[in-house]
Amino acid sequence: MTRHYNFCAGPAALPAPVLERAREELLDYQGRGLSVMEMSHRSPEFVAIAEQAEADLRELLAIPDNYRVLFLQGGASLQFSMVPMNLLGQGGSANFLYTGIWGKKALAEAERLGFPVHLAGTSEPSGHAEVPRPGQIALSADAAYLHYTANETIGGLEFDYIPEVEAPLVCDMSSSILSGPLDVSRFGLIYAGAQKNIGPAGLTLVIVRDDLLDRARAPIPSLFDYRGLAEAGSMVNTPPTFSWYLAGLVFQWLKHDIGGLAAMDAINARKAAKLYAAIDASDLYSNPIAARSRSRMNVPFVLADARLDTLFLDEADAAGLLNLKGHRSVGGMRASLYNAVPEAGVDALIDFMADFERRHG
Amino acid sequence: MTRHYNFCAGPAALPAPVLERAREELLDYQGRGLSVMEMSHRSPEFVAIAEQAEADLRELLAIPDNYRVLFLQGGASLQFSMVPMNLLGQGGSANFLYTGIWGKKALAEAERLGFPVHLAGTSEPSGHAEVPRPGQIALSADAAYLHYTANETIGGLEFDYIPEVEAPLVCDMSSSILSGPLDVSRFGLIYAGAQKNIGPAGLTLVIVRDDLLDRARAPIPSLFDYRGLAEAGSMVNTPPTFSWYLAGLVFQWLKHDIGGLAAMDAINARKAAKLYAAIDASDLYSNPIAARSRSRMNVPFVLADARLDTLFLDEADAAGLLNLKGHRSVGGMRASLYNAVPEAGVDALIDFMADFERRHG
Repeated sequence: MTRHYNFCAGPAALPAPVLERAREELLDYQGRGLSVMEMSHRSPEFVAIAEQAEADLRELLAIPDNYRVLFLQGGASLQFSMVPMNLLGQGGSANFLYTGIWGKKALAEAERLGFPVHLAGTSEPSGHAEVPRPGQIALSADAAYLHYTANETIGGLEFDYIPEVEAPLVCDMSSSILSGPLDVSRFGLIYAGAQKNIGPAGLTLVIVRDDLLDRARAPIPSLFDYRGLAEAGSMVNTPPTFSWYLAGLVFQWLKHDIGGLAAMDAINARKAAKLYAAIDASDLYSNPIAARSRSRMNVPFVLADARLDTLFLDEADAAGLLNLKGHRSVGGMRASLYNAVPEAGVDALIDFMADFERRHG
Repeated sequence: MTRHYNFCAGPAALPAPVLERAREELLDYQGRGLSVMEMSHRSPEFVAIAEQAEADLRELLAIPDNYRVLFLQGGASLQFSMVPMNLLGQGGSANFLYTGIWGKKALAEAERLGFPVHLAGTSEPSGHAEVPRPGQIALSADAAYLHYTANETIGGLEFDYIPEVEAPLVCDMSSSILSGPLDVSRFGLIYAGAQKNIGPAGLTLVIVRDDLLDRARAPIPSLFDYRGLAEAGSMVNTPPTFSWYLAGLVFQWLKHDIGGLAAMDAINARKAAKLYAAIDASDLYSNPIAARSRSRMNVPFVLADARLDTLFLDEADAAGLLNLKGHRSVGGMRASLYNAVPEAGVDALIDFMADFERRHG
């Protein structure tokens, strides 16, 4: 068996110890004679798995008691619909910060559904090279909430601060959640697709403050209703049990193997700093993002000569450095450095890049 | 490692060869150095997995070319919303057959969303012991479609025929799909949560005829729009990749290990027949469903003395016969005999029941 370094933007690398544990108990969970996948979601075994996962997540992120944690389906993109359909039920408009493709999709979906939207700030003037500064954010008077994307996975643009505004803050944290400590109390609602730092695709995490559970106005689909989902412990219908279990194993790994989110934060800071330093010191590679807005999770870069792109990707793949191709909408390269990408993987990438530059630069 | 017989109603037993194959390649898919869970859904490797799964399903069910196959999230319950929001966009009413809890939920959700509904037939007069006969089904003049539940998982009630009506037929086949051959051309839309005969929870299959793709009227959430989902190959956003892969392994198992759906059908017929025969021959156990409406997949039964229930369940569990407890809404016992429950498991259950009756009956 071989394990390569996987820089995929998502679905992304998972910690090897998590996969090993899952493999070990895949056909027989703790001597019960069946797989976690084969258990009723209401069985004592699975309920224990689900509750442990939530407890570990609450501990990792120090989630206050007045927040509910939901384990849902549909991906972050379904939240683009669910958030306005819940939070605009009493009127008002959805305010957005637009810093890249994902933020734009969230705005477009609210608009598509017929809700009033307001653009409260954007990184567009900088060509999405720098997030708007606090003074450049202006909410509408009727703002029901402000939505932003903490980290733009495609552009490689990350907020270096949490906006301070009057309205509840709603944040798509799909590609940065759990990369370090977080003050959850600053937010009204946080959501994240699992397939970067949480677990496999098909699970979506929502952390929502109690007072925002009841803003929906019927009729919305039962499975969209945060209040109903919260009261049913995310089991209005059968949840994605195996993904929930794997997320729980990732939380355990973060607690016990890594030592918590402060330790994870330090590792992620080192990983990103050394890759950006290597890019900045090179004549072949470049990254266009302003230093303070650079993403720690997704590092896009281009080669000075785009004709070398294919060769770079082929050689990288042959060297066991997988999935470095940039998003099809922007081209170039992208190295995603999520939690499960070890520092040794980043070192190997930097060595490869230097060697490639020596040979072809 | 122990593998017990698992009679869970869902999430349910999966074929051991499927789990073994998944275990084998869990950390390294075909020498690529990463798990299927860690692959981009747009990578050539995953696209091949996804396309093979669809091709195998099309072959198994002989799905005509004018039907699209969607691999979605949200469970069958999300289809309770998606179906009316798509199919009633041009007006008309949703017609329903009500034969148990799941059919009732589907009707209630359409009603909750403000759509006109019409009850076109019900098994209620029989206490849900027999499905309505063809002559007892009466559609409204404005019927946009007729929805029914092929098999009621909780009640253990299954249609022994496909209704013949003017309007497109929409069927929740969550707990009976792939249990035998099916004439897909009789249906407008078929949907099924995966966690019985397809794969793990978190995947939902929709098979929809081309002409029904365009009946939605905006605004509905992008991820609800069958046309958009079909055109994006179920990849409007990241699909539940690992569940899709496992479903593909189940389809391979049905084709190669079982020999197709006619062979599966014969096995399922034998399994159900011998369990019902044992129940009918016993003085301790009974099943209330009319013979021709009895479910092949879910066999509920009660003990003549309900005080023996706990003892029955405890002894069964100790004998490696898991999850025989009936649904909390009806009590008693339920043995779910999905595809992955081997005939030997049913034999073992029958032996245990006979032995229990000798000792306690």
